[in-house]
Amino acid sequence: MQGDGIQPTFVLVRPQMGENIGAAARAMWNFGLDRMRIVAPRDGWPNPKAGAMASGAGRLLDEAQLFDSVAEAVGDCAFVFATTARARGLTKPVVSPERAMQMAARKCAAGEPVAVLFGPERAGLENAEIARANAIVSVPVNPGFASLNLAQCVLLTAYEWRRQGGEITHETVEMAGADWARAIEIEKLAAHYEERLEAAGFFFPADKAESMKVNLRNLWSRMALTRADVRMLHGILRQMVRRNERGG
Amino acid sequence: MQGDGIQPTFVLVRPQMGENIGAAARAMWNFGLDRMRIVAPRDGWPNPKAGAMASGAGRLLDEAQLFDSVAEAVGDCAFVFATTARARGLTKPVVSPERAMQMAARKCAAGEPVAVLFGPERAGLENAEIARANAIVSVPVNPGFASLNLAQCVLLTAYEWRRQGGEITHETVEMAGADWARAIEIEKLAAHYEERLEAAGFFFPADKAESMKVNLRNLWSRMALTRADVRMLHGILRQMVRRNERGG
Repeated sequence: MQGDGIQPTFVLVRPQMGENIGAAARAMWNFGLDRMRIVAPRDGWPNPKAGAMASGAGRLLDEAQLFDSVAEAVGDCAFVFATTARARGLTKPVVSPERAMQMAARKCAAGEPVAVLFGPERAGLENAEIARANAIVSVPVNPGFASLNLAQCVLLTAYEWRRQGGEITHETVEMAGADWARAIEIEKLAAHYEERLEAAGFFFPADKAESMKVNLRNLWSRMALTRADVRMLHGILRQMVRRNERGG
Repeated sequence: MQGDGIQPTFVLVRPQMGENIGAAARAMWNFGLDRMRIVAPRDGWPNPKAGAMASGAGRLLDEAQLFDSVAEAVGDCAFVFATTARARGLTKPVVSPERAMQMAARKCAAGEPVAVLFGPERAGLENAEIARANAIVSVPVNPGFASLNLAQCVLLTAYEWRRQGGEITHETVEMAGADWARAIEIEKLAAHYEERLEAAGFFFPADKAESMKVNLRNLWSRMALTRADVRMLHGILRQMVRRNERGG
């Protein structure tokens, strides 16, 4: 699967460990994003540890563009987000990843390139870098325990991009491909049970019989039964009805 | 920050590496979730590597409840989600993490305990475990590169729980007011049927017996059974088992 042409570019700013860069690539590609840029990686580039970690997402690293500064990395972008946990005294709009990717979707579709900055693992982005962003993205984490690592930030942002992408529905995906029983088949199943249970004296006492039957009939139609289920339920009843010597 | 009283319980099923258990705890606590259960961890419990990795989220591990099986771990729950990438031939509703956590929010608020199962790192959940869930949660990942690890699955699910803040949406109107059976009650019903059907020779031929049992078990958890339904289904079976002379 090739990534979409219209997608935000994820920019890793001064990333430290190669493994984290590789993990970020994996996180992106899990959700179909493949536009990565890297600014002044601590251990140079390319980085074999990044490649080893990226594994099947290695193409992202091969195609990643390298820059010396944030300013150069986002030069062609119309809108830049900076992910950071701490606002650090800068006056800058702060949005959630959800809102950020909503905005990103609209801008990308309108031909306005979008970038998302992710800072180095320990210190995060510097104020001078955040200043170059148009908005801050802040993940709504537990204030008492905010410990997302680089790949996790990338993952959540990429997930939000995909979730709101319009392709993947977030509606209930019903059991696709199942061969659902038709109403007439449910009716026959219900009749089979009612007949046998009647003969077995299940609907007792007489004044409760009708409501018991209705309750049971209601249950059958409340289940989402496939044709295989219906066959099995018929079979269960037949088996139980047969006289069995083995301690039935 | 203490976790909310009303939240889903995350169940790690047969987790392998201690570091991953610790990472899962961190992922949960990032979003204020602190109810963890662990089923048959490969390396026993407690696990110092889990503790070391969890670090500031260590309380989750200290308070985690240990179980020998999935059935026991979810006994008190009214609704169980199973996270898995592959449906593996079981007929089961599949929802996104977003939809799952919408449903979870509504159920938790209504006093119906919810559990989310996460399988072992390599193989994922077994069919017999998925069969005990009411729905599958599938993260909408790139089909050509689906490589989320345990902590990342936990992270995305926890993130979705927090993002939707427990607000109740106006989606599917659940059958309000119903007294839903708990998983332990479904387990007993399933065991009752399996026992009687086994004795009646229903699971035949021998090489198909196991898959027939898993299919039937899967059906029970696919139905939305109230406690009244469970009583009725027990009653049906008892009635059928009784020898009846009237041409049963």
